[in-house]
Amino acid sequence: MTEQIDRIVKFIQETVEGARATGVVLGLSGGLDSAVVAYLCVKALGEEKCHFVSMPHAKGTDNYVLEITSGLNSRLDFYDISFVVDLFPESTMFDRIATGNIKARIRMVVLYYYANQGNKLVVGTTNKSELEIGYFTKYGDGGVDFEPIAHLYKTDIYKLAKELGVPQEIIDRKPSADLWKGQTDEDEIGMDYETLDDILRMDSQALSIRKYGADKTARVMSLVENSEHKRRLPPNLIEEGDE
Amino acid sequence: MTEQIDRIVKFIQETVEGARATGVVLGLSGGLDSAVVAYLCVKALGEEKCHFVSMPHAKGTDNYVLEITSGLNSRLDFYDISFVVDLFPESTMFDRIATGNIKARIRMVVLYYYANQGNKLVVGTTNKSELEIGYFTKYGDGGVDFEPIAHLYKTDIYKLAKELGVPQEIIDRKPSADLWKGQTDEDEIGMDYETLDDILRMDSQALSIRKYGADKTARVMSLVENSEHKRRLPPNLIEEGDE
Repeated sequence: MTEQIDRIVKFIQETVEGARATGVVLGLSGGLDSAVVAYLCVKALGEEKCHFVSMPHAKGTDNYVLEITSGLNSRLDFYDISFVVDLFPESTMFDRIATGNIKARIRMVVLYYYANQGNKLVVGTTNKSELEIGYFTKYGDGGVDFEPIAHLYKTDIYKLAKELGVPQEIIDRKPSADLWKGQTDEDEIGMDYETLDDILRMDSQALSIRKYGADKTARVMSLVENSEHKRRLPPNLIEEGDE
Repeated sequence: MTEQIDRIVKFIQETVEGARATGVVLGLSGGLDSAVVAYLCVKALGEEKCHFVSMPHAKGTDNYVLEITSGLNSRLDFYDISFVVDLFPESTMFDRIATGNIKARIRMVVLYYYANQGNKLVVGTTNKSELEIGYFTKYGDGGVDFEPIAHLYKTDIYKLAKELGVPQEIIDRKPSADLWKGQTDEDEIGMDYETLDDILRMDSQALSIRKYGADKTARVMSLVENSEHKRRLPPNLIEEGDE
């Protein structure tokens, strides 16, 4: 994993330099992925060039955020998104997902607000498991300038976290996109990340069915297919080779 | 242009069907591009499947919006974004651009709020002139599900508008992204659309310098170069051919 860390550190440095930006803005949720990206950015750019933002909704500050940033001289802002989110009325059960998406998108707006002020890049925290099944909000947490851990499955992020020295309490937390109370990623996806990553890594569907059954295999395949639009630019009628 | 209209109508129909969506949500600014897209969507899908949203900021309803939708049975909602935008304090002159971006991004959040509720797609109104020079907000008006007029330069949109029967008052309005009071596209870009489109269409920089001078040519080239990040997905470390 040391080689992996070096590779990501170089990517962060080159991306920031290439954009002639002054550093990065990162949303810290208190979860593993954003903690790992925070550690990587500090390693790559130094703490002064990293600007962290905690954006809670209808609850106190996440103590885990303070744990991640304790001892760091990076700027840390708090922006309570409740006031903004509450301007969108939640009226039906269906709206739980719509509201979750609104939260993710408002967080994007806040991060770019800070990024614009300091000529910084917004850095993403999407991992490969999330990217492949579309477990992110289009133009929400997916709305960033670059993605330093999108080539690593969630199960690899754990290894990276250990090597980077991320506190064990963060590593041990149940993964949650935190879009509503009590939400966990694994409940919503329908399986744990070990299973998901193993299925995603497999070349053959038959192999996956043999090991995990038809239901789980079909679930993963449909998540991958239905999220294809999230992994491409908005389609248009410009033809290949057109200038 | 009739062939062009047919081609776009088919693209809208196929995109909506392909996504198994029930129709489209479109932000109407009162300007030409969104009016043209509104006419195209009604032609492609019928008025019941089109949901228009006017999202003014700190001013009354744009009468032009009512003109565009008059006589249509499409749903038209009004969402005043002032309350949301004002939660982001505007403190310095620099912030004018940051605030403009916030407006465009909040409009994206509102459009997806409606789209999520009705299982609709958000349709974009970016034209090719804007796309090539990056004259749109990343994850703002650029944050849509598909772009039916992104292959046409602004000067072509005028021709399309005439053929579609868009009211002359809309065609005659000065183009403005309306991100702040008195803003016009041509002031901000530094030349009129006829010049811009002509330069963008040219194969050779030398030709452009001869016809329009070095300053305007350099201006266009730098706009195109500096906006490259807006026309691609966030870069990551996934390698070509990686699965």
